[in-house]
Amino acid sequence: MNSIVEKIQVAWEHRVFFTKNVFAFENPLLRDLLAVGDYGKNLRVLVLVDAEINRLNERLRSSIESYFEQPGVPRLTEILALPGGEKVKSSWGEVSKIHAAIERNHIDRHSYLLAIGGGAFLDVAGLAAATAHRGVRHVRLPSTTMGQCDSGVGVKNGINLFGKKNFVGTFAPPFAVVNDFEFLSTLPTRDLRSGFSEAVKVACIRSAEFFGALEKDAPALAACDPDAVQRLVKRSAELHVLHIAQGGDPFETGSSRPLDFGHWAAHKLEQISGFTIRHGEAVAIGIAVDVTYAKLAGFLKACVAERILGLLRGLGFSLFSEGLTIGSETGLRVLEGLDEFREHLGGKLCITLLKDIGVSFDVDQVDKKLVRAAIADLAISENLR
Amino acid sequence: MNSIVEKIQVAWEHRVFFTKNVFAFENPLLRDLLAVGDYGKNLRVLVLVDAEINRLNERLRSSIESYFEQPGVPRLTEILALPGGEKVKSSWGEVSKIHAAIERNHIDRHSYLLAIGGGAFLDVAGLAAATAHRGVRHVRLPSTTMGQCDSGVGVKNGINLFGKKNFVGTFAPPFAVVNDFEFLSTLPTRDLRSGFSEAVKVACIRSAEFFGALEKDAPALAACDPDAVQRLVKRSAELHVLHIAQGGDPFETGSSRPLDFGHWAAHKLEQISGFTIRHGEAVAIGIAVDVTYAKLAGFLKACVAERILGLLRGLGFSLFSEGLTIGSETGLRVLEGLDEFREHLGGKLCITLLKDIGVSFDVDQVDKKLVRAAIADLAISENLR
Repeated sequence: MNSIVEKIQVAWEHRVFFTKNVFAFENPLLRDLLAVGDYGKNLRVLVLVDAEINRLNERLRSSIESYFEQPGVPRLTEILALPGGEKVKSSWGEVSKIHAAIERNHIDRHSYLLAIGGGAFLDVAGLAAATAHRGVRHVRLPSTTMGQCDSGVGVKNGINLFGKKNFVGTFAPPFAVVNDFEFLSTLPTRDLRSGFSEAVKVACIRSAEFFGALEKDAPALAACDPDAVQRLVKRSAELHVLHIAQGGDPFETGSSRPLDFGHWAAHKLEQISGFTIRHGEAVAIGIAVDVTYAKLAGFLKACVAERILGLLRGLGFSLFSEGLTIGSETGLRVLEGLDEFREHLGGKLCITLLKDIGVSFDVDQVDKKLVRAAIADLAISENLR
Repeated sequence: MNSIVEKIQVAWEHRVFFTKNVFAFENPLLRDLLAVGDYGKNLRVLVLVDAEINRLNERLRSSIESYFEQPGVPRLTEILALPGGEKVKSSWGEVSKIHAAIERNHIDRHSYLLAIGGGAFLDVAGLAAATAHRGVRHVRLPSTTMGQCDSGVGVKNGINLFGKKNFVGTFAPPFAVVNDFEFLSTLPTRDLRSGFSEAVKVACIRSAEFFGALEKDAPALAACDPDAVQRLVKRSAELHVLHIAQGGDPFETGSSRPLDFGHWAAHKLEQISGFTIRHGEAVAIGIAVDVTYAKLAGFLKACVAERILGLLRGLGFSLFSEGLTIGSETGLRVLEGLDEFREHLGGKLCITLLKDIGVSFDVDQVDKKLVRAAIADLAISENLR
């Protein structure tokens, strides 16, 4: 015998719930989900709250405390407020703080880390949960449109190191995701809207029917109508989860990542802007760049490209940023995003483009001159508006 | 729709190879394993070497360099020597150093981090590899008996934080494990032997046939006979891998962990000793404690218990340590290991005991008075020798 070869298989049940007022005493969702069963008194829950959400929701802390006084739920040991926003993702420090809280509260592999916050906050909490004891049960409550319709319902976490987005992280399906629509009601308009671009993204690559529904809802979405927002979140989350579960590569071992459509330029643009542009805003611009590129390269009809840009504009997005033009005559800084994207995915470059709405395909090279032309094209059309 | 529930499935091919002189020019193993194929020039390899191995093997560096000058293999970008031993596992610092090297060498998700070293060194390298870009391809070359027969062939990594063994880590099947028997030839006798206890462990819980083979080989093993050591490594690695792949719980979501037989006391004893006791030596003592406990509790016949202690002694292990008796009248420090073990596994306490050689079962409580009696029993029998 000179080798041993065995297949290792692991399965997770990925669950996303939609509700309102999850900590209302009469809401049974968390009570049922976290039921103690025969675990007894060792089962605990540590709650992490994005400090911004904590500030916006005055009664959040007391309602969490009341909720966990019910019989049959795990013992609440601490509610810890920590800062959110992209900056908390820039070092190991915040992960380490959460590890200390997990240790201090004796959260074991069957106990819960329940995190409430925006995408960046959940990325940090998720990395801490996935690595403490090699994984404690992590319940995610995304508090933003972005989190509820995209990043929060996925299986990834991460922090930015060496100036590279998500350089350190893991794949780790959460115990459950709970999308509480009530959190969206206290969001500033800019944050509420910024996640809409991820819904447009998943519609572009997966579903012409959803794209049509978004066009129909665009005026209501632009006005932040709660019912329209909830429709967007539900369908976007569903398409996202279906892609992960049925797309054949949940932990992204290959090079193709259609859910990163529009993201190579977006990630770089966020960095160039010093994270003053929201992720969702950058994604809208990134989609616009790749859609315009596909039009100029002859992959996508001009009228279809215009329809996509039209929807993004209709949802309130600006499709140009000065950051796109920073750099030298020989090289725009945003183009460095192509190399960084290739390196992050690994292997060969693989960029998702569109043939039509709902129909994506991958290319393994990008014509940088044509990207410059696409950026110039966007600059002109945004100036004309 | 108020919920989305989808199954996420991930499969890995777990491969363990046995060879000699893996970096000899004529050895095709790594050349075939890491073949560039159609990836081209972007495929790279960063080699990490335990500084101790580097010191013991004068020509290692030059033979690695020559090996990667062959056509068709990835580009070797750096050979980095870092310290090994349990102390490197005591902070995030070493993981961070490896992340910096991964970034500096542009190791992407399809490129390789090849690590050569002892168990602790591979634990740190594995954690860095599993978290950089959410996982780069990690090839493990364990350089100790312990690594080759047990920890190095598993799917775990980790570092010790808050005074707790493996508090931070992940489950991450490596790209491949390569057991090069030549590394064992330069090991100090103490390190060569210390891994034998893990082979005894897996024989105790899984295979009376392997236990018999170890008894037969004991004199040769005690004399560090290479053929006997290789037989031990191969069969122990095989039983270990089969348990992970076919045991039903590769990522340990349940409470039962038969491969941790003997480890609750061992982990605590290592810590009490300030890591002056080798992990394998502590495991031998931990097995002795649990075997004696099972005997006193009436689970295991005295003659079978004596056979197991006899094999461990025959392999050169001392079965007692002063660390077992440290503590107060009301509580031995080693007993704290029970609570820490429960918390690390999560849920209810679950300790694996033996009914017979090759036949294990789990208990959810341990009589601390009987543990004290087992320790006293061991103290007496070791004194009488």
